Amino acid sequence: MMKKSDTVAILLLSCADRPGLVSRISHFIYERGGNILDLDEHVDPVEKTFFIRVSWSTENFSIPPSELVEAFMPLAKEFNAIWKIRFTGRKTRIAIFVSRYDHCLQEILWRNSIGEFAIDIALIISNHPDLAPLAEHHGIPYHCFPVSSASKQEIELQERELLEKHSIDTIVLARYMQILSSQFVDRYPGQIINIHHSFLPAFVGSSPYRQAYERGVKIIGATSHYVTEELDQGPIIEQDIVRVSHKDTLDDLVRKGRDLERLVLAQALRLHSEHRILVNGKKTVVFD
Amino acid sequence: MMKKSDTVAILLLSCADRPGLVSRISHFIYERGGNILDLDEHVDPVEKTFFIRVSWSTENFSIPPSELVEAFMPLAKEFNAIWKIRFTGRKTRIAIFVSRYDHCLQEILWRNSIGEFAIDIALIISNHPDLAPLAEHHGIPYHCFPVSSASKQEIELQERELLEKHSIDTIVLARYMQILSSQFVDRYPGQIINIHHSFLPAFVGSSPYRQAYERGVKIIGATSHYVTEELDQGPIIEQDIVRVSHKDTLDDLVRKGRDLERLVLAQALRLHSEHRILVNGKKTVVFD
Amino acid sequence: MMKKSDTVAILLLSCADRPGLVSRISHFIYERGGNILDLDEHVDPVEKTFFIRVSWSTENFSIPPSELVEAFMPLAKEFNAIWKIRFTGRKTRIAIFVSRYDHCLQEILWRNSIGEFAIDIALIISNHPDLAPLAEHHGIPYHCFPVSSASKQEIELQERELLEKHSIDTIVLARYMQILSSQFVDRYPGQIINIHHSFLPAFVGSSPYRQAYERGVKIIGATSHYVTEELDQGPIIEQDIVRVSHKDTLDDLVRKGRDLERLVLAQALRLHSEHRILVNGKKTVVFD
Amino acid sequence: MMKKSDTVAILLLSCADRPGLVSRISHFIYERGGNILDLDEHVDPVEKTFFIRVSWSTENFSIPPSELVEAFMPLAKEFNAIWKIRFTGRKTRIAIFVSRYDHCLQEILWRNSIGEFAIDIALIISNHPDLAPLAEHHGIPYHCFPVSSASKQEIELQERELLEKHSIDTIVLARYMQILSSQFVDRYPGQIINIHHSFLPAFVGSSPYRQAYERGVKIIGATSHYVTEELDQGPIIEQDIVRVSHKDTLDDLVRKGRDLERLVLAQALRLHSEHRILVNGKKTVVFD
Repeated sequence: MMKKSDTVAILLLSCADRPGLVSRISHFIYERGGNILDLDEHVDPVEKTFFIRVSWSTENFSIPPSELVEAFMPLAKEFNAIWKIRFTGRKTRIAIFVSRYDHCLQEILWRNSIGEFAIDIALIISNHPDLAPLAEHHGIPYHCFPVSSASKQEIELQERELLEKHSIDTIVLARYMQILSSQFVDRYPGQIINIHHSFLPAFVGSSPYRQAYERGVKIIGATSHYVTEELDQGPIIEQDIVRVSHKDTLDDLVRKGRDLERLVLAQALRLHSEHRILVNGKKTVVFD
Repeated sequence: MMKKSDTVAILLLSCADRPGLVSRISHFIYERGGNILDLDEHVDPVEKTFFIRVSWSTENFSIPPSELVEAFMPLAKEFNAIWKIRFTGRKTRIAIFVSRYDHCLQEILWRNSIGEFAIDIALIISNHPDLAPLAEHHGIPYHCFPVSSASKQEIELQERELLEKHSIDTIVLARYMQILSSQFVDRYPGQIINIHHSFLPAFVGSSPYRQAYERGVKIIGATSHYVTEELDQGPIIEQDIVRVSHKDTLDDLVRKGRDLERLVLAQALRLHSEHRILVNGKKTVVFD
Repeated sequence: MMKKSDTVAILLLSCADRPGLVSRISHFIYERGGNILDLDEHVDPVEKTFFIRVSWSTENFSIPPSELVEAFMPLAKEFNAIWKIRFTGRKTRIAIFVSRYDHCLQEILWRNSIGEFAIDIALIISNHPDLAPLAEHHGIPYHCFPVSSASKQEIELQERELLEKHSIDTIVLARYMQILSSQFVDRYPGQIINIHHSFLPAFVGSSPYRQAYERGVKIIGATSHYVTEELDQGPIIEQDIVRVSHKDTLDDLVRKGRDLERLVLAQALRLHSEHRILVNGKKTVVFD
Repeated sequence: MMKKSDTVAILLLSCADRPGLVSRISHFIYERGGNILDLDEHVDPVEKTFFIRVSWSTENFSIPPSELVEAFMPLAKEFNAIWKIRFTGRKTRIAIFVSRYDHCLQEILWRNSIGEFAIDIALIISNHPDLAPLAEHHGIPYHCFPVSSASKQEIELQERELLEKHSIDTIVLARYMQILSSQFVDRYPGQIINIHHSFLPAFVGSSPYRQAYERGVKIIGATSHYVTEELDQGPIIEQDIVRVSHKDTLDDLVRKGRDLERLVLAQALRLHSEHRILVNGKKTVVFD
């Protein structure tokens, strides 16, 4: 864990593999006075794709943050890479979408309050008023947009305006019970994190606990994934499971699953906000 | 754990719930001199179904094993129960079906060799000769029936004859790569244990590791279930999972999954052979 | 899980084993109109001790709750049993002791707010004022007693008065950083639940995360136990663990451990408040 | 996972941190035609120590394996590093020490037989004849040295001769019930892998399952570590745990723990033989 006060630069990059990539990248950092703190590099032996996450101290770095992207651009172009650079000094700006269940929101707000996340929670958006008091307790603006099928399109526009206005990087769907339109989703590729209450791909769609109960599984799970156009099909970030038995009623599954949901979503948000995730087609590469 | 030498009677029973069931059953045991060692009873609060597993020492029991079923019959009829009585002195007789993979067979034979199971492994049946040396090392008869689509019906008849001849109670499919006919399956209801290499109901059918690899899941699993006519749809006995990451190739998934498969199948066989499982429609009740 | 509205009676009992115990107890319930919902009985094969937890619906029970203890007394005396009877209609009354860390308190208050526990949290006692706002948010009285070595004895007396006045059944030490005197502990045998931030018996005493960090363990744990006179030696209720690696600093251990602490303590409190725990000498019997 | 046929070089290195280490090392590899396949680097933020594991394909590498150590020496000296270089084409040569329990030996031999390990098991040494047939089944030479306190010193000399003669790199104590002398241990620093049947540091010394049973823990564990002079105090490689309950007798703990022991030891051996472990004082750095 980094000291909160440090400014650390983080590069996430993937491209077709070829010799010299690590050497070139690490030399780029070294010759500008950066000291690498953590580097994780991996070549997929089947696809021959190169993945790297490297973080370095910018204490003696000769390039200011504002010019780093431009400075790295030639190398990235040469590698034909998918890449981004982030700084720990610039926190990810988050909007949380909720409906009525409080457990995921509660978890994120509490963790944030004790400094676990490197995020700024700019606002909370809901289609119900229920969780406004919780938002208020944590001093986060709460916007309530009651959605109907008639109003959905119009409301999404208002929501998007709000998100733009607050320069939101990442949207967290903390058990938000509405399906976002594909226009909305397309605007935030790899930036919308959802929590689904099953071990995907089992039990997609609605009522996964009921589906699990009726199938008689001995473990239930939760899955956090990036949202794409196809429901519950986006790249998986994190999953976890818990054992259940014949003594567990549907209510018990909901109770046990609640703990999974909030922990898995919190972990996914932590990984995302620490810039540990590269989306690679339908999958993620998680550097943890 | 019981001392191996004891003879213990075990009753598994389910019926519609009504007052007095535990009292009647425990009194039946008590008045005949049995001492209850372990009793687990549960009423499903939704279906109002009563489930019980009770084991008792027959050291001073007034009814010999051979007459117990008849003695208990009136009570069972009054309750309109599904039930069975077993004795630890009478080991479950097992046939193991295998193909080429040795890990599940190896695991079961080794565990049996150190006394972990209350089973007699009467024979091993395979559609390949590969595992004959392993069977021989453990002194278990090995029957090889190379199956083709043309010969399948005829071979199943030969296999069933063999199973009858050896008074087989339970068939373990230890990564047996053939699908049994429904006639075969119907003959052994709740007596054929399979291991499927995924956390069902995710990834039914063939190549579940490839399916898991392509979906990019962060956990893979294995599921042991009773075989029914529908492929991979039978009542689930036991499941377990292991974490995987983007660094794991398909071969790594196979390697990690292999450990799950053999442990989950062994655990399912242990539960089954200790008479800890009641099949309840499409689910199991597992008294562990 | 029981419907919250039902009144269910729960008997926890242990005694030396002998034939007929289940029969006698279940008959006692049956002949008074009780319908058993869940019964778990076990005989320790080494110590020959009998343990039972049985719950029954009192819907048609002929004895009112206020007279049940007296009615069962003769049987209990005959068995020379350790026992108690509880009713789901009578919630366990809880006092929570905290210092400065909020995670365990936060977890318990939140779970209680969504109805997960069958408890009444009557008051919170602390040696610091820090968590008063959290208590206030949940509407629970908060009493601050700054403890010094000089004032300790006097303050414990005041605390005990407060506990008596509120008819407290159970005290939860939610990361309370003071050691209670043996007089205090003796007054609440099997009624004080602590959370220790290691997998006991490893790392007793102070700074367990530092101890774990310095030893280089690959898993860390948390343990909830009943408090006895000997520090960290009381009967263990629940434990859980999480993996750590060389990349985890001491701060990371604290962060990961925090999740364990609150989940393990919450689980212990749930088991305790649902009357699922029998203390058996230096161990617990947990019927889950 | 690498294809078995490839020859891959692996560098493990630690030294005091300073800027440029990754750049220098990766450039060394690149300019000689190596293509990095996997690189994991980490700086301990407290001790300011640099740790790296890097593997590269030597397909087009200009330096033959036999000259690589010498070629890298100047860099290593400049960094004042602790380091080693290994090649996947040169398998680790293993001696396994056993006593009477077969489970760990069985596990290692079986995994090796299906190609899971990059090792050559050169010989098995035991103080009992019991496991000779198992060794024979796998075609591994078995040497029986019945140890007494009188003969111990003399026998260790014979054993060491045998180990030298077979150029043994690594010794696996697969539940070997003798304590090796410090002279013996000193000869193989970071090369003797032991399995201890508890989650260390809980329950050091003898009868850990009995200690766990008597303490009433809810989880038991197993720990694989490098052997040092102090009993059970060496750097921990891998640990795992399993849940137990009041229903588990001491025999059940032994049975459940057996599964842990063999899996944890096998995992430790895999990590060691793939050169994924750096010993760092009293701890290990595991690159997995």
